[in-house]
Amino acid sequence: MKDVNQYTLTEAVKESFRTEDGSRLKFLLETFIDHLHDYTRETGLTHEEWIGVLNFLYDCGKISTPERHEFILLSDVLGFSALVDMINTRGGATEGSNLGPFYLDDAPAMELGADLSGGRSGAMVLVHGIVRDTLGNPLPGAMVDTWQADGSGTYPIQEQEQGQDKYDLRAKFTTDANGRYYYTTVLPKPYTVPYDGPVGRLLRAGNRHSWRAAHLHYIIRAPGMRAITTEVFFENTEYIDNDAVFGVRKSLIAKVEPVKKTDALDYQLSAKPDAKFRFDFVLAPEG
Amino acid sequence: MKDVNQYTLTEAVKESFRTEDGSRLKFLLETFIDHLHDYTRETGLTHEEWIGVLNFLYDCGKISTPERHEFILLSDVLGFSALVDMINTRGGATEGSNLGPFYLDDAPAMELGADLSGGRSGAMVLVHGIVRDTLGNPLPGAMVDTWQADGSGTYPIQEQEQGQDKYDLRAKFTTDANGRYYYTTVLPKPYTVPYDGPVGRLLRAGNRHSWRAAHLHYIIRAPGMRAITTEVFFENTEYIDNDAVFGVRKSLIAKVEPVKKTDALDYQLSAKPDAKFRFDFVLAPEG
Repeated sequence: MKDVNQYTLTEAVKESFRTEDGSRLKFLLETFIDHLHDYTRETGLTHEEWIGVLNFLYDCGKISTPERHEFILLSDVLGFSALVDMINTRGGATEGSNLGPFYLDDAPAMELGADLSGGRSGAMVLVHGIVRDTLGNPLPGAMVDTWQADGSGTYPIQEQEQGQDKYDLRAKFTTDANGRYYYTTVLPKPYTVPYDGPVGRLLRAGNRHSWRAAHLHYIIRAPGMRAITTEVFFENTEYIDNDAVFGVRKSLIAKVEPVKKTDALDYQLSAKPDAKFRFDFVLAPEG
Repeated sequence: MKDVNQYTLTEAVKESFRTEDGSRLKFLLETFIDHLHDYTRETGLTHEEWIGVLNFLYDCGKISTPERHEFILLSDVLGFSALVDMINTRGGATEGSNLGPFYLDDAPAMELGADLSGGRSGAMVLVHGIVRDTLGNPLPGAMVDTWQADGSGTYPIQEQEQGQDKYDLRAKFTTDANGRYYYTTVLPKPYTVPYDGPVGRLLRAGNRHSWRAAHLHYIIRAPGMRAITTEVFFENTEYIDNDAVFGVRKSLIAKVEPVKKTDALDYQLSAKPDAKFRFDFVLAPEG
């Protein structure tokens, strides 16, 4: 019988997984086992701490539902999600940011110039820009898939029981021949991530708040291009410096400016905006 | 707004936790964030792999119940539990090993020499030894808390619905004036860890089996001494070289020998053993 100790155990565990040599699974598993074991040795983890970690994960599982994925939230507050977004951003393309829990892939298609607000209260803003490739060429026919919270920081999908339509405040736009997209909506407000579960306990233990900076969500797709999932934030708004899930990047902050009565806008709009901002998206080629 | 990138993000996440300087929580959290982020960067984890990991944890949560803690099982098959046992073993003391999922803290007290088998079929074995301190002194009045599977690899607690008593095959013995413990029982057989859940999927993906080498569980306590949780295995038995949860240590393997009809045994026993083994436990002082 080959004896193992706290140093040789790591190799023994890695060898026990007889995954294909050179495979991605082998690399992911072995690197994970190395880090898990290094962590345990470096901290001299006690049995009480060990079971504390495992019971924390158990509690995350218990509070999770198809509508609430506490492990994604945990990933978010540990900067794990943000890091995956960062390392998967292609050079020259718009930086990625959190998908978040409220995406629906079947949002209604809307015409350019449409109004998303549905009469909701809040600052009415014109959102416009161009979708380009990394060489600067406009991308006609690109899909701009967007969803957002309302002027009080709530997603309609969260208030279906109060009679809201989960498809409100979300739409798919298609860029015009010049790669342009434009629509009006209400400016969203900040909101908190759910903090009534184990991740909330972790935030409190770390004296952290649970607020997200106000943002609009986007997925941008175009044929032959690598899709991006990202968020657009607003200059000088609350939590822009300490977003609870580390979603903010300097390059994703838009500057909202008032629309003067005398401004001639370039677009046919179905509602009249009080303010406007421009944000261009850049997609890198696939592969 | 302070911009972050994939390298500066890690510090930003650590700083966001405003835990007490020098505290254990701060150290555990910061070391964890370092390893989690290093892992992500080293592997260049994709979004698909990231959500795969989080959905795996979600599935572990869904299959867990108060009687089945899939996260402990995950910890077991990754050698995390074994490593925590190893680093918490005190010099000179008996090595620690898995607690496992079947411990009950209110097992019945039994007299030395009692028989645990309750008439179950299997090889009847005399289990005996001395509980000592690290200087070699016997420890009278030490508590030997034991539980085990039967001669077919099943714990009675797993078959309560088939009419078994969950307190069967478990007992607390108290060592005599010479630190000795002794009782008879059936030799346990190997069994598999549960493999119908996400951890089973992981084992299959790694071409790993789910068998544990046959073992007896023990928790040994004595006043003023650090309690140990461990397992005793048997020489030349199946899976002794590749226990699914890495519980086997060379120092925890006992040699089972036949009892000859003419052998004079040192103990008053209530059943007649076919075989015997001796295992001495060593406890280190508390603190």
